[in-house]
Order: sequence, then structure tokens, then C-alpha cells
Amino acid sequence: MKSVKLGFNVSSPFIVAFLFALISTFGLLTPGVAQTDPLPSWNEGPTKAAILEFVKATTEEGGLKFVPPEARIATFDQDGTTWVEQPMYTQVMYCLERVPELAEKKPELKTIEPFKTVLSGDREAMAKLPKKELEEVLAATLTGMTVDEFTAEVRPWMEKAKHPRFKRLYRELTYLPMLEVMRLFRDNGYKTYFVTGGGQDFVRVYSEVTYGIPPEHVVGTAGAVQFSYDQTGKPILTKEPKLLLNDDKAGKPEGIHLVIGRRPVAAFGNSIGDKQMLEYTQAGDGPRLMMLVHHDDAEREYAYGPDSKVGTFPDALMEEAKGKGWIVISMKNDWKRIFAFD
Amino acid sequence: MKSVKLGFNVSSPFIVAFLFALISTFGLLTPGVAQTDPLPSWNEGPTKAAILEFVKATTEEGGLKFVPPEARIATFDQDGTTWVEQPMYTQVMYCLERVPELAEKKPELKTIEPFKTVLSGDREAMAKLPKKELEEVLAATLTGMTVDEFTAEVRPWMEKAKHPRFKRLYRELTYLPMLEVMRLFRDNGYKTYFVTGGGQDFVRVYSEVTYGIPPEHVVGTAGAVQFSYDQTGKPILTKEPKLLLNDDKAGKPEGIHLVIGRRPVAAFGNSIGDKQMLEYTQAGDGPRLMMLVHHDDAEREYAYGPDSKVGTFPDALMEEAKGKGWIVISMKNDWKRIFAFD
Repeated sequence: MKSVKLGFNVSSPFIVAFLFALISTFGLLTPGVAQTDPLPSWNEGPTKAAILEFVKATTEEGGLKFVPPEARIATFDQDGTTWVEQPMYTQVMYCLERVPELAEKKPELKTIEPFKTVLSGDREAMAKLPKKELEEVLAATLTGMTVDEFTAEVRPWMEKAKHPRFKRLYRELTYLPMLEVMRLFRDNGYKTYFVTGGGQDFVRVYSEVTYGIPPEHVVGTAGAVQFSYDQTGKPILTKEPKLLLNDDKAGKPEGIHLVIGRRPVAAFGNSIGDKQMLEYTQAGDGPRLMMLVHHDDAEREYAYGPDSKVGTFPDALMEEAKGKGWIVISMKNDWKRIFAFD
Repeated sequence: MKSVKLGFNVSSPFIVAFLFALISTFGLLTPGVAQTDPLPSWNEGPTKAAILEFVKATTEEGGLKFVPPEARIATFDQDGTTWVEQPMYTQVMYCLERVPELAEKKPELKTIEPFKTVLSGDREAMAKLPKKELEEVLAATLTGMTVDEFTAEVRPWMEKAKHPRFKRLYRELTYLPMLEVMRLFRDNGYKTYFVTGGGQDFVRVYSEVTYGIPPEHVVGTAGAVQFSYDQTGKPILTKEPKLLLNDDKAGKPEGIHLVIGRRPVAAFGNSIGDKQMLEYTQAGDGPRLMMLVHHDDAEREYAYGPDSKVGTFPDALMEEAKGKGWIVISMKNDWKRIFAFD
């Protein structure tokens, strides 16, 4: 073996080890994909670069944009931002599919509306239910039981219910690129919170195993619970049909204040319901990152915008995003891979 | 130097180093006080031992009482549990002392009750104010401003207002033994939360610097906030006179569910207002620790119980504690030192 000429006198094995270390460090052994890319499901481009740059800048000690660890709060909408929300929010699917079991216990429901329509299985008729009647279904399936009973009802449903188009469990319909973003933030000392219009108790059932977001980091639409004792004297919490927090639109910053008490430095959403959360985030001092997922990929997921009832993304929101420097994520162009099963 | 006879043949410096290491490890260099005692302000005895044993048992990997890190939640009442609450809750003192500044801005208050009485400075008359009138003072001083304005009002007060008996800043009246307990729990992977009847926004102003408890770990009595825009278009949150959560008695487990969403494994209180939190904590599976601070030290702090309006500790609570294995902390006997300035 001939010694490599480097202009200084060291033994060949040392040079080999040194070069190997150099190559490993800069990822030259696997050209194209750096081994340490924390966002492998994102296509290269300004969107991915903006996320990486933000995390780097806010965690670089001594840097101008440094954010101290205790202030590192990143908030994420759930439906449409971290998992599929079409054709209907997962929680609404749960409520509708829960009605048959409910009617077994309370047979009188079988003959009265809106339960009769839901039990008919006629999806078209269900879709036409007025908001007030849909709310009756939600109240009947989401309240009246203890918190522990509710968890015990949701958990098995999450393990068997499947999405009508993808024929997959709902928790498999999480967006891989967003799971990567959440992990990237957490790996850099950020606390990641859900701030979702979905029910806080519903999301808490699966958020830790599905997203790595613990129950105490779920801000969601919340009803009151009432403390009392069961027949054996054991303390219980019962879910009441009384709304405490409607965690949508203006309710999002209000919920953030209630549960977190700090302004986020990064916020991710996908619809008009996230507008106020992004505005509130941006209004703080120092570096901020505001992003909106845009559903423009009918082939791999869905394409919808101003006219969709679920996840409405009006033109005015797109204008506001452009005007204020919020970054719009194109599902079609920015995401190399959407689901883990892809 | 004569070699120490140990029955084996090693050089003297080695033995000295070995003995030194041994002595350091077991704290023999400072007899009486082990250098590594995490609870130096506690007297030796069953109370201190119970705390140390609980933390050890719940964090010992493979042990029967092991609690996984994500489930390690410890909740603390504030007034009377981690700082002085006599002769009146600190926040009520704030509200009363805030009235003069309020009357400067709104002179019409000077002639109407209950503000007239508060402005008179007559403490006896103030103490006699009916609950409803006191609530008017609280509403006037705790609502109507933005969250940021409120913080800016509370912060300087906390830096200058002094306790009538101790002539010390309120934040100096924290109990050293409880600060040590909080730190011990945190050092062992527990999240420490306040669950206080005090105002959530009030406590958040100083909880991080005073107790090491960040804003997102403060569960407290909470009013609604309303999102809107100021004249410049900047998003603001305004404190509304509408109660969302009365974080006292049954409201404590309800608030724990709302903000944390997990049952605590350890809970600390000092009065009838903490009863339900301790019951709820105990009702969970696995190891649990429930403790009540009993104020029986009129000399160093205060002695009060069933007849006190502030921090009521009825005989029935003492009975319940005994019957259920809750540990009552005797301030007089269990605490070697109460305040950092002692």
C-alpha cells in the first residue's frame, strides 16, 4: 500500500482513519441523501430549507435568532395538518359510527331523528343533516359518560375503524412529513402541542402513540367535566354537554393562553380555522415561523380549497399568507412521500 | 509515613485515595448532614422518609412501584402549601392594593362602594366586605385589560409589595422545604404542576422564577380571554369577567383534567380546598403520595385549622387523612427551616 502524500509525515493507517472520519461527518459515503436528513419525506426546495433554517437559527446558542429552551413552543393543528380530514373529520366519523352501539343501550333512539337517519346508514342523508342535529349526535356520543369510559370507547374504535377511501386505520393516515417536522422540533428542545378543533379528550386517547404528543400537550375543543363519586365512593369525572372552549378560529389563541400560557414561536395549520393562531404567533417578538399545508394533491390525497366545507382554505387566507410571509406547503410539490405505507 | 495495615499489599497513596472516595461517597466528611441530602430543610423522621422513599420507589427501574417517566405528574396547591397565605391570599392583597392606581384612571370609583372602603385603607372595614363586593374588586383589578398589560401590572407589584407581618416580598415567603420537594421531584423526572385556587394568569407571572414552575404547568382559576385586534391591527387577548374554571375543591380535579389530562401520582395541599385533588390522585392505580401541610407553628409562621376562613383545615379532613393514609406535614415538627431568610 502506497502512502498518500499529504505533505506531513504520518503513518498510512492514521490517514485512512482520518479520511474515513471526514467522509462520515460530511455524509460523502452516501451521495444524494445525507444520512442525517431529519426531513427525508420532503422534497428539496425553499419550504424544506425554511424549516431547517428556522430550527437551526433558533437553537444556535449566541445567534441573533436564538430562542431560549423554555420558550420553544410549536403548535400544530391536527385535522388536515397532520392527518387526513376528508371526506369528514375523523372524530365526526367516530360519532356517527358510535350511534349503533348507543342505540343498543337506548333503543328509543332508533325511532327519533337525527339518530334514525344515522342508523339508516344512508351517507347522503347523513351529509344533509343540519348542524344542530349533527351536534345532537356529537353530544350523545361524546358526553354523559366518565372520562375513563370515554377513553375505553374510543380506543378500540381507533384500532378497527377504517377510512372509506384508503381502507386504512385513521392513525395510519398521518402525514409522514409532518411527523418528521414534529420530531425535528422536539429533538431541538421544542415542546410540540396540538391546538385542534377536535375534542381534547378524543385526541388525547391516541396522540401520544400516534404523534409522540402527550395528553398534557393537547389543546382541543373541551367540554366541562364534573367531579363526583360513584356508588363505591370512588371519585369520577363525567363529561358534561357544556362547552368550555371551542378551539377553532379565535378560540385557538384563547385555548393556547388557557392551557399553555405562552405564545408559540412556530405554528402549523391548513385552513381558515388556523388564521388567528398564525396571526397570534407572528405577533410575538423575535423569530417566528408560520406555515399552512395546502391540499393540492388529488391523486395522492385530496385537492380542496375555498369551496370545501371541511378544511376551508379561502383565497383571502392565501393572500394573507403571501402578504405576511407565511409559508404555504404544497402537498403535491413539497412532499416526496405522504404516508408511511406509500 | 507508615503504611496502613489492611491485610493486602498496595501502595499508601492508593489507599488514601480509596478511603477518600469511600468517605466522600457516604458523606462521612460532614457528619450529621449528608452532603447529598435533597431535603436539608426537613427534620429527620417518618414524613421526610416517606417522601424520599416514594421518589426512590417510583423511579427505580424494574421495581414494583416504578412509574414510567411520562406518567410522573406531581401537583401542588400554592397558597398555604408552598407559600404563606395568612392573613390573606397574596392575590387578594394585590387586588386591594391595586385599587388606588385604578381610581387614578377612573376617579368615579372613589365615591362608590366597595372601592371607597378599600381606598379608605381601613383594614377592619375591608375585612368585613361581603363576598360579592370583594368579587367586584377582583373583577375590576383582574379583568378588562389585555393579558400583556396584566402581566406588566403584576410584575412590579411582586417586586415591591411586602407582607404585613414579615416585612418581606411575598416571593420570599415561599417554604424552603416545599421548594426542595419540588426540585427533588423534577430531578427525578417528574413534571411539577401548580393546581391553585389563585388566578392562573397571576401565578404565571412569577411561578417560573420563584418556583421553577413554567407558565404551562400552572393550573389555576381561569377567566375567559377574548381574541381581537388592537387599533394597529395587532392581535390581542383581553381578560374577560367570565369564569371558565374555579380551580378549588371539585374544580381542582376538573382543572387537572382540562389542562394536564393525566391523573397525578403525587399531590400536595393544605386545606379543605385540596380534598378532592388528593382523593382523585389516590383513586389511580399504582403507587400514590398524598400530603397535607398543617399549619401548627404560630411562632415561625401561623397556626390555624378548622376555624380559619383562609386555608380551612377541618377536623373531618384530618380524619380523612388518617383513614386514607395521607401524610400530614407538621410545619412545627417536620420543617427544620421554613424560609430561606431564616
